[in-house]
Amino acid sequence: MANNTITAARGFLAAGVACGVKKSGRSDLGLIVCPTGAKAAAVFTTNKVVSAAVRVCREHVKNSEIQAVVVNSGNANTCTGQKGIDNAIKMCSATAEEIEAEAPNVLVASTGIIGEQLPIRKITAGIARAAAKLSASAPAGLDFAKAIMTTDTKPKQAVRRLDISGAEVTIAGAIKGAGMIGPNMATTLSFITTDAAITKPLLKVALRRAVGDSLNKLTVDGHQSTNDTCIILASALAGNRPIVSQCPRYKRFAKVLAQLCDDLAKQMAHDAEGATRIFKVVVKGAATTADAASAARAVADYPLVKCAVHGGDPNWGRIICAVGSVGVKLNPDKLSCKLDEITVFRNGAPKKFDTRKASKVVSQRQHTITVDLGAGKASDFCYGCDLSAEYVRINADYHT
Amino acid sequence: MANNTITAARGFLAAGVACGVKKSGRSDLGLIVCPTGAKAAAVFTTNKVVSAAVRVCREHVKNSEIQAVVVNSGNANTCTGQKGIDNAIKMCSATAEEIEAEAPNVLVASTGIIGEQLPIRKITAGIARAAAKLSASAPAGLDFAKAIMTTDTKPKQAVRRLDISGAEVTIAGAIKGAGMIGPNMATTLSFITTDAAITKPLLKVALRRAVGDSLNKLTVDGHQSTNDTCIILASALAGNRPIVSQCPRYKRFAKVLAQLCDDLAKQMAHDAEGATRIFKVVVKGAATTADAASAARAVADYPLVKCAVHGGDPNWGRIICAVGSVGVKLNPDKLSCKLDEITVFRNGAPKKFDTRKASKVVSQRQHTITVDLGAGKASDFCYGCDLSAEYVRINADYHT
Repeated sequence: MANNTITAARGFLAAGVACGVKKSGRSDLGLIVCPTGAKAAAVFTTNKVVSAAVRVCREHVKNSEIQAVVVNSGNANTCTGQKGIDNAIKMCSATAEEIEAEAPNVLVASTGIIGEQLPIRKITAGIARAAAKLSASAPAGLDFAKAIMTTDTKPKQAVRRLDISGAEVTIAGAIKGAGMIGPNMATTLSFITTDAAITKPLLKVALRRAVGDSLNKLTVDGHQSTNDTCIILASALAGNRPIVSQCPRYKRFAKVLAQLCDDLAKQMAHDAEGATRIFKVVVKGAATTADAASAARAVADYPLVKCAVHGGDPNWGRIICAVGSVGVKLNPDKLSCKLDEITVFRNGAPKKFDTRKASKVVSQRQHTITVDLGAGKASDFCYGCDLSAEYVRINADYHT
Repeated sequence: MANNTITAARGFLAAGVACGVKKSGRSDLGLIVCPTGAKAAAVFTTNKVVSAAVRVCREHVKNSEIQAVVVNSGNANTCTGQKGIDNAIKMCSATAEEIEAEAPNVLVASTGIIGEQLPIRKITAGIARAAAKLSASAPAGLDFAKAIMTTDTKPKQAVRRLDISGAEVTIAGAIKGAGMIGPNMATTLSFITTDAAITKPLLKVALRRAVGDSLNKLTVDGHQSTNDTCIILASALAGNRPIVSQCPRYKRFAKVLAQLCDDLAKQMAHDAEGATRIFKVVVKGAATTADAASAARAVADYPLVKCAVHGGDPNWGRIICAVGSVGVKLNPDKLSCKLDEITVFRNGAPKKFDTRKASKVVSQRQHTITVDLGAGKASDFCYGCDLSAEYVRINADYHT
């Protein structure tokens, strides 16, 4: 069977262990190692309050060769002052020591509760145990995907393969995230490995574009976390003719990377806290792309729309209300709305429709809401999910 | 017993009846009448999609004398095209006919489901029945407050009295609203009567300021409705020396009006859909007032904070995360946070605190979250409420 985990790309080892950060005893420490060294690129949260891991990782990712990524779940190492920074650096140095590398060549990420200091001794002990288990096998890749989970109900992974100049190139990803997810940032922790030979600057451009149209288009509760990080590592072991310019080979690589990110983003949406279904909001007829993006996000973030989707309710009035509330240019007399292919509102007036059919559309695992603002030609989209009582239960009980 | 309803101010009659807009058979049509004519002022939603009632009311309120307000619940008359406008005007003309006035001297408001045409015959029949019941009694005022309810669990009213130049002046208000409530607009339907003698321009200024610091500071789900309307009518029957400038008498009137609006806003917050408790967010140390307002609102709107408050969980990390996510200027090394008087985060680092005491604070009927951005001297505030599974239940089931 093909390896469909983060270790599918040539040159990468992984491991995941439980080291005691999580009181539940679940897996909470993951390692990815590239012994031969990888080119790396990353995007981070745009929140002004960031985790110590993000601060350290931002610096380390500038280095030309990265040999490992160390990640803990169960504790965000955020709002932890200088001690938090020291601990993030210790995670890197402990990992470096195990694999005979230097601390600045190790990237770090954390996720979990904000405002508590890391149990650093447990973590460094866990790093040693994880390093002893490192493997390029599929189970090792799965262990990594499990180690980064918080309220996720399942590990989320994706693999894509493509041919570049006669060589098979693999791109593999693992992602975590179920709440505190808003667009316009990296969104949650995600890790991508590839064996493509590609320059660091091009890797960065490809990652930014891929994230821009996938992870950044997803909103669960409209808020960006303090820890969001998306890292890509390229080992160059596939044997392809190196990608050194925005040539057709680059474009194919970038396209497949974007598909992988879209796959990961949708998996995350489906596993969002308490979510039972997802929806895509397409806004057309906008004066500008920014207007379209802002209106799409307003719909996807609007609690009343999310509740209606949860109830399988074709309550399009709430969609229009959300669109009107964000200050984008619209023509009230041309404003229209569709639920999949069912027109429910056209040119500013309600349109008779079969309520049972529309309820069926809204009750699907995924449906598309299309809004035409009647104010121009720009368009954009966004993914959202329903809001359930389970979301409240999860988030009222998470801390205490 | 003193009259504590909308009819407490001299010169006002009210009534409320069930006319069949609501399938439940509950009261859904309200009238306020000022036979001698009143000065009026109003503020409306800033949503770009507005109800037909708002469109008509915006025009009518410009008239120098207003004799009635007619309100229906159960149907928003929004996204209903030209027919909706015609129906809103019919509501005014039917009311005018009953009280021997002209349609442009009648104000109109609607609330309820978006996108369905009003059952206008039922409504005009209801207007006739309500007109026959008009009374200055307290029960008639209460009937009005009940007629404007949607998912509200109780009628919300407030009365204030003050002395102006030896005359007792009364200000009375009734309000509805429990969901689809965001700040920066009039917020929901509210109606205020007063017997003060005051000019129309000053009435408008006083209303704008009062709403700005009360209704506009409240967020339940961060979204403004398409129908928000706050109307004040002044009958001039109190016998006070007329208020014609921003003199001390004006200032006292404006202050008491602001107190009344604050009372109504808090009643609304406590009765917000599914809410079990409310909280005030105070943001200090901001570079600008706009920054402070934006940060306060981000906290009050953040689902994870709302869920934590619901769970009685002093999860301050989510508060800091919300503050960081809205792009306001802040100093991460001076950032601090208090829950009532308990400091949980100071100068960018967590502070040990008694978790049980903090849980008790968060579990109160109302508590205050104070955030210091450490970036300046400006401050602002916002009211919010918790997010409960009941909110989801109400809003998943509202339509179908």
